[in-house]
Amino acid sequence: MRRNAPKSVIKRLPVYLRILDNLIRRDVEIISSRILSEETGFTAEQIRKDLAFFGAFGTRGTGYNTSYLREKLLRIIGLDKQTNLIVVGAGHLGKALTRYNITKNPYVKVVGIFDNNPNELDAEIEGVKVRVMEELPAVVKEHDVKVAMITVPADVAQAVVSTLVDNGITAILNFAPTKLKAPDNVYVHNADLTIELQSLIYYSLEEEKHNLG
Amino acid sequence: MRRNAPKSVIKRLPVYLRILDNLIRRDVEIISSRILSEETGFTAEQIRKDLAFFGAFGTRGTGYNTSYLREKLLRIIGLDKQTNLIVVGAGHLGKALTRYNITKNPYVKVVGIFDNNPNELDAEIEGVKVRVMEELPAVVKEHDVKVAMITVPADVAQAVVSTLVDNGITAILNFAPTKLKAPDNVYVHNADLTIELQSLIYYSLEEEKHNLG
Repeated sequence: MRRNAPKSVIKRLPVYLRILDNLIRRDVEIISSRILSEETGFTAEQIRKDLAFFGAFGTRGTGYNTSYLREKLLRIIGLDKQTNLIVVGAGHLGKALTRYNITKNPYVKVVGIFDNNPNELDAEIEGVKVRVMEELPAVVKEHDVKVAMITVPADVAQAVVSTLVDNGITAILNFAPTKLKAPDNVYVHNADLTIELQSLIYYSLEEEKHNLG
Repeated sequence: MRRNAPKSVIKRLPVYLRILDNLIRRDVEIISSRILSEETGFTAEQIRKDLAFFGAFGTRGTGYNTSYLREKLLRIIGLDKQTNLIVVGAGHLGKALTRYNITKNPYVKVVGIFDNNPNELDAEIEGVKVRVMEELPAVVKEHDVKVAMITVPADVAQAVVSTLVDNGITAILNFAPTKLKAPDNVYVHNADLTIELQSLIYYSLEEEKHNLG
């Protein structure tokens, strides 16, 4: 059943998960699709369709049990078991993402960070040592890694992808500012750190208008 | 008219903008709401409604002119003029976001980066020097800054918000792993670097299933 979910649905699942995490922290037990709609910006109809895709989890007229829905979503996304992850590129962004995921993301474990810059090789980020690329195959094999994040400069990113693909990586989150080629069975997602900032700019200008008006 | 757009619409505008940027780079002149729907995951109906909110930009049966729609969106979001921005916190994430926005985001200009850690004060990121917090008011005033990004540890984040609010900042993108309080006229958005990674994990597991099946 998971296999047939369209990309657009999959993209929305982590958004639901984040909201459920927040609700559960605030001891909210039941959530309606209307409230989920207000929190996410997706229509209530869209939300009902998305969730029905994986089985009907809600009760008509009441809503969804937050803990139950969260567990279902974790299982659907594949976060019920910890995912091992590597980071290639130990510059500021690589270090920041490694630290962020180790300290803030309970669903993943960063098992390796790689860089061929000799200046970075002594670094250790939250207990994970920066290693040379030559050690990547052994780490990937030992920890059965399928997911990698790339934070290297644009001009070496494609070579990194080849190494990753050769070593059995099937999903890549790319922060390098370039489009990457990969075989059809490897999923590459280009991250964009500017999207959230842009809606923020809208609001900063709104506020200005209020002050003027 | 901008003033009345719901939050959910505003969140989707930068997503449209990113897709239009890519299309224009590939010399695509006209785009239908159906294709926009495939690229974004929002329904075609939702997209038509969103864009109609700001005026009718499409031609029935043909679609939207990509360059025209892009210009309209830039103006709506407020990106037709460059936005000045400061970053508070010069750790790895602060440095990475500063560099990323200076090199990858033509719509903003980072005019200051602040940190009270004496180890960071000598650093210079893409020509922007790390300064002590005491210099923040002067920089904000000189460059008429309304937007700030926070990448400080959780325990000092609220104090930073107070300083920012006192100095007239009206929009804050928060990367500190904590909820922040701010007056009603200040917009705080909590960034989450884990969302994109989570859909990636889904795909890495999909691939595994294919291999097994």
